[in-house]
Amino acid sequence: MQVGLFHTVQWPEGTNQRERYQQAIEQALLAEEAGFDSVWLTEHHFSRHGIVSDSISVLCHLAARTTSIRLGTAVAVLPLHHPLRLAEAAATLDVVSDGRLDFGIGKGYQPGEFRGFGLTLDDREARFNEALDIILRGWTSTTPFSHEGPYWSFQDADPQPKPIQTPHPPIWMATDSDGGFRKCAERGFGVLLPQGRSLSAVAEQLSRYRAALEAVGRPYEPDKVALARALYVGPTIEAAWDDVTGPYQQFLDYAGRLAGPGGSPSQHASGDPFKLTASVNDSVLFGSPASVLSTLREIEKLGVSRVIMFVHIGGLPHEQIMRSMRLFRAEVMPALGSSVAGNAGMVASVVSQSGSGD
Amino acid sequence: MQVGLFHTVQWPEGTNQRERYQQAIEQALLAEEAGFDSVWLTEHHFSRHGIVSDSISVLCHLAARTTSIRLGTAVAVLPLHHPLRLAEAAATLDVVSDGRLDFGIGKGYQPGEFRGFGLTLDDREARFNEALDIILRGWTSTTPFSHEGPYWSFQDADPQPKPIQTPHPPIWMATDSDGGFRKCAERGFGVLLPQGRSLSAVAEQLSRYRAALEAVGRPYEPDKVALARALYVGPTIEAAWDDVTGPYQQFLDYAGRLAGPGGSPSQHASGDPFKLTASVNDSVLFGSPASVLSTLREIEKLGVSRVIMFVHIGGLPHEQIMRSMRLFRAEVMPALGSSVAGNAGMVASVVSQSGSGD
Repeated sequence: MQVGLFHTVQWPEGTNQRERYQQAIEQALLAEEAGFDSVWLTEHHFSRHGIVSDSISVLCHLAARTTSIRLGTAVAVLPLHHPLRLAEAAATLDVVSDGRLDFGIGKGYQPGEFRGFGLTLDDREARFNEALDIILRGWTSTTPFSHEGPYWSFQDADPQPKPIQTPHPPIWMATDSDGGFRKCAERGFGVLLPQGRSLSAVAEQLSRYRAALEAVGRPYEPDKVALARALYVGPTIEAAWDDVTGPYQQFLDYAGRLAGPGGSPSQHASGDPFKLTASVNDSVLFGSPASVLSTLREIEKLGVSRVIMFVHIGGLPHEQIMRSMRLFRAEVMPALGSSVAGNAGMVASVVSQSGSGD
Repeated sequence: MQVGLFHTVQWPEGTNQRERYQQAIEQALLAEEAGFDSVWLTEHHFSRHGIVSDSISVLCHLAARTTSIRLGTAVAVLPLHHPLRLAEAAATLDVVSDGRLDFGIGKGYQPGEFRGFGLTLDDREARFNEALDIILRGWTSTTPFSHEGPYWSFQDADPQPKPIQTPHPPIWMATDSDGGFRKCAERGFGVLLPQGRSLSAVAEQLSRYRAALEAVGRPYEPDKVALARALYVGPTIEAAWDDVTGPYQQFLDYAGRLAGPGGSPSQHASGDPFKLTASVNDSVLFGSPASVLSTLREIEKLGVSRVIMFVHIGGLPHEQIMRSMRLFRAEVMPALGSSVAGNAGMVASVVSQSGSGD
């Protein structure tokens, strides 16, 4: 199993932006040291939910402070970008990191972010599609090209630099919809599954993704699914939950408000990923090293071999996050490492079984 | 006198983008080591003239690899940016660099860059002004704000993070027009003077800038003018010119073509900064350590105490650039250092004289 770090740099009331950035960077450096294979940054605007608004700039910074960890956007919100500029920026990251970019993309969901750019959620799908086409063309075209679209029009653009990875950096798409899975299956994109869903919900998502792959005749590859999970490890299950319950509830409450219409509290029905329900134990990695490892084994059995860890939870203090990550490194990572080789056959078999069962 | 590095990362035919980036970064690291106080990156699009399209990402990378050198855009081409995104990106740089951003801005001049973004040069002035207002508001506002303008409209934006420097990072404007000087004088912006003009042309520019300052009752501050100059130092004047003439002509020819209408060869009259005229010796810093120092003394006498050095000239090989920079560090920088203290009175006196002569 490959483990990544998934970071939003939240900015709870009473905290300092520069300190939050410094802490996030320290957490990313510890992640590389601990053997995490990737760090993924969100993109958010205009709120305390996440103050990484220019994720690629921050990843360019991290590129200089790390040597091998892969650098991902999770996600670049395509409808909110000029696609030529985003193509240029992402390629710049690929160049300065020597080909370490994982390009995660999404449609966005916060009404306040769209309004703050003078846009609405209504046409985010169409904007997403047009932007993606332009970005891929910008990366791979060897001559200037023009474009006339509903959202962007331009003449003789030839964005530079070009990415180092060929034909272009891997693309990951945040989705759990049938349409999204179909697009990933058709175009060979990786799938970024959201955090906060129960294991049975994840299993259901995966079965729909497998169906989409079957429909286009592609095999399921565990390596191309990354599942986001909140992580907090304490010496015991109880100690972990004592520390993290308050900060996680704070995170969920705030996230729920921003996702609601007009930024008001969410009116979603039960099953809302932003609600701390009874099933929460099944939707996070909070606990002792042994209990977290056990849940990771459950995840692996679903055919998922990449989990990206959300560690910067609400106002959880930096020192506690670092302690949790060190405990994870010392007592969980070694067991995971051995499982990669040891369970490869098992995972392949689970995949193949699940695949045929769809 | 303060010395900076001014870099475009050109990409001549037959060279490799990744190598050109690596070389530029090495040159920037040598600049810090040599005591340069700043590194400034251009922004260019869609051509070999400069492949730094996202200067702020590259500066965020440099922020991690340097400790004290200031990090400048020279310039961010405001009409080509969404101002909220640029406010966010530049503030991110200020945060990850611990307050080292110098925000240089300009209107742009290459028709091909505007066309490639679906724009024209016609309204660049109006776009520049509207963008600048939005950026400053985004940096300094403590509450969400809305904007309804000819070019951008949005509701309840509150860009994060905010810059570290207060009230905001220093602003520098690339200009040599009366209108630009007036804006710099009125608003307290620094002035970035273009490279390639003779010393008498620079003196004339400065006299117009001083007049603009006088008109608003502000004193002339040598610290707020940065003059760009191509630099190449060899063991002798002849050796330097032998090395650099070809690459500099190559740079001028290509720059001239891009500045012309439709990207065709420039039809500018004489005095064109892109033409290698007889007066070129007066518009560059090519020569031996002694001759370059002597020209820097002439510049200092004009009341300019910041020169930003353009070293990455056409296809000039990296090794030669590094050798030139090391020679400059060893034999020119020490003399300049002493002049800062030694000539402070002299400079002030020149300034005051020139100022009163306007």
